[in-house]
Amino acid sequence: MKTSKQRPFETLSGIEFERIKKFSEGRETPFLVMDLKKVAKKYNDLKKHMPFAKVYYAVKANPMSEVISLLADNGCSFDVASVPEIMQLLGLGIPAERMSYGNTIKKSKDIKFAFEQGISLFATDCTADLRKIAGFAPGSKVMVRLLLDNTGADWPLSRKFGTHPDVAFKLLIEAKKLGLVPYGISFHVGSQQRDIGQWDTAISLCKYLFSELAKEGIKLRLVNIGGGFPSSYINPTPSIKKYAQTIKRFLEEDFQNCEFPEIIVEPGRYMVGDAGIIASEIIHVAKRSEADEQAWVYLDIGRFGGLAETEAESIKYPILVSGHPRNEETMPVILAGPTCDSFDIMYEKYNYQFPKTAKEGDKVYILTTGAYTQSYSAICFNGFPPLKAYVLK
Amino acid sequence: MKTSKQRPFETLSGIEFERIKKFSEGRETPFLVMDLKKVAKKYNDLKKHMPFAKVYYAVKANPMSEVISLLADNGCSFDVASVPEIMQLLGLGIPAERMSYGNTIKKSKDIKFAFEQGISLFATDCTADLRKIAGFAPGSKVMVRLLLDNTGADWPLSRKFGTHPDVAFKLLIEAKKLGLVPYGISFHVGSQQRDIGQWDTAISLCKYLFSELAKEGIKLRLVNIGGGFPSSYINPTPSIKKYAQTIKRFLEEDFQNCEFPEIIVEPGRYMVGDAGIIASEIIHVAKRSEADEQAWVYLDIGRFGGLAETEAESIKYPILVSGHPRNEETMPVILAGPTCDSFDIMYEKYNYQFPKTAKEGDKVYILTTGAYTQSYSAICFNGFPPLKAYVLK
Repeated sequence: MKTSKQRPFETLSGIEFERIKKFSEGRETPFLVMDLKKVAKKYNDLKKHMPFAKVYYAVKANPMSEVISLLADNGCSFDVASVPEIMQLLGLGIPAERMSYGNTIKKSKDIKFAFEQGISLFATDCTADLRKIAGFAPGSKVMVRLLLDNTGADWPLSRKFGTHPDVAFKLLIEAKKLGLVPYGISFHVGSQQRDIGQWDTAISLCKYLFSELAKEGIKLRLVNIGGGFPSSYINPTPSIKKYAQTIKRFLEEDFQNCEFPEIIVEPGRYMVGDAGIIASEIIHVAKRSEADEQAWVYLDIGRFGGLAETEAESIKYPILVSGHPRNEETMPVILAGPTCDSFDIMYEKYNYQFPKTAKEGDKVYILTTGAYTQSYSAICFNGFPPLKAYVLK
Repeated sequence: MKTSKQRPFETLSGIEFERIKKFSEGRETPFLVMDLKKVAKKYNDLKKHMPFAKVYYAVKANPMSEVISLLADNGCSFDVASVPEIMQLLGLGIPAERMSYGNTIKKSKDIKFAFEQGISLFATDCTADLRKIAGFAPGSKVMVRLLLDNTGADWPLSRKFGTHPDVAFKLLIEAKKLGLVPYGISFHVGSQQRDIGQWDTAISLCKYLFSELAKEGIKLRLVNIGGGFPSSYINPTPSIKKYAQTIKRFLEEDFQNCEFPEIIVEPGRYMVGDAGIIASEIIHVAKRSEADEQAWVYLDIGRFGGLAETEAESIKYPILVSGHPRNEETMPVILAGPTCDSFDIMYEKYNYQFPKTAKEGDKVYILTTGAYTQSYSAICFNGFPPLKAYVLK
């Protein structure tokens, strides 16, 4: 078993990996395997270190029914992004009371549907959306999402979501006038956020808004501290314990002289990332010319087959090549997918290291791929089917 | 009907658009409508202006069975990228003799399958792939793909495909030794290539290789001039007539003192791009703060729902907003998709112009979306289903 130079094994024991490797034998690649025990462990760790928070799993990270049911059985709630997600969860027997509609981009009819099913907590960030909620989900609780700059996140959130504190203030005032319950503030520090300090600024802003709105007779209850907790990719991150301790300190400092708010946390990537491994295969290795330092390695999975988050090399998965001795010399490689699309290149700059004799048929395990992979895969691009996915219980 | 400032209507008559608009009424967005008459016209135009070339439609551009069958009925051949594409075409009654395996990235077992079905023309660009072809498709014809720099292409092809002339030379020599038929040279100037001059360099290289290999006793027969012919996006392009005339001149100049080679052309985007319109809807319009110049317009389709080629704003589709008077004042907008993904932004820099009163529910028609859209759409990202697609006969 030859490993790439980066090789962070913190979250994957040898036993766990052997189990997935064994499962992979004889199966046609590419596919994703989810280890449900690992998901359960992640959930339990989070509950243990963050007992003060109610956990809403961000379904979009991995919507496999087995994952959702496992979390539901453990008492988890859910952050949903669309009507199909709501329908899926209802179909699994999860009551609407355990869902929050976290997507700030929703059609009126989607809000109406969600409300009719019993969802009564909505995220919002602009007047247009707020008025739709007032019209189609009257009396619901709203949390206004703040716009943060997401420094330090590997998959930052840009200006697409959230609003500035002054607008948030106005929206919560308007919410009350429209007959809604101005319930709290939400924010998202950016996915795979490696700088815990980002929560500090955000929580301070929440406290500021709690105080300012109190002066207007509006008592906010909720701080939704979002997601952003990491999976174990190549770049090192603090432990969930460290995140929890530090965020708790920020909350206690800011809310020390008043009632401690309800806290919601919305992990997606953290909950499922480490639990997934993609088994892939080398199609072949090529050099563009003999003088090239880097070889091109073509895998049977690419950006349109599930590895969308390799865009701009944002997320760097740990990668293992099977069937080579540990001490074999390595070479820097460019990793590309199997389609005729020129953008279907995963890593060109990072210089992953592969064994010098890597060749067609070698199994390639892409670790920490349980989040934002299978659901992203294209329906039939270049004729290739979407990524298959299995669970191990 | 309010239009964005760019508005190139060369390829879409009012009648054609009205037909699609009428079809769209009452149907839930988003969806793609393909006008089959337009596809037929594109094919006929190409045959008319390029009678010297055999046309292989690049199936990956739009693999809808109705499109493929229409082209097959008109005598078209097909460039396939994968085993599922081959199976689809066989299922439609298209014989393997009318297919060429154009993807240079293929597993041994895929080559074997293709060969067993009767495919005998393969593109290649490296030793590893060439040897697989020799092993699993013995005696087949091979065309070696050249690496070009793709200047001038809106969706360039990078260094992922093709090889340098010196390696191409060696590969064709080796092909003969391995019992294959060294048949010709292929190249691809990059998709949506707006500079016809790019074919000049490429054809010169082909002629050079024809001459050099003749000295080694290898008589090449084929020049595969690839695709790259444009659809009518926002940036203007020459007519297909102009492309055909100019490329013909390049060929005649280079091959004037010898037998004229067989010519293959592999249009994908050209054939289907203009024939497609995506009907979408505004979810809502928001400003991040009151002082913002640009408004955010959220559509019910985004980068993961079929508009993958808006990555880096590479392909700029003409866009029409329905239901506003022609003379209404416009505002610059950022266009984003409906998912919670921060990368799901189509156009942030280009400043599309939308009517100032654009609002939820306005129909938005995204033109020239027949190529590389539906097949790219994610299977269930954020719970959203893949893009629906219809045909008009």
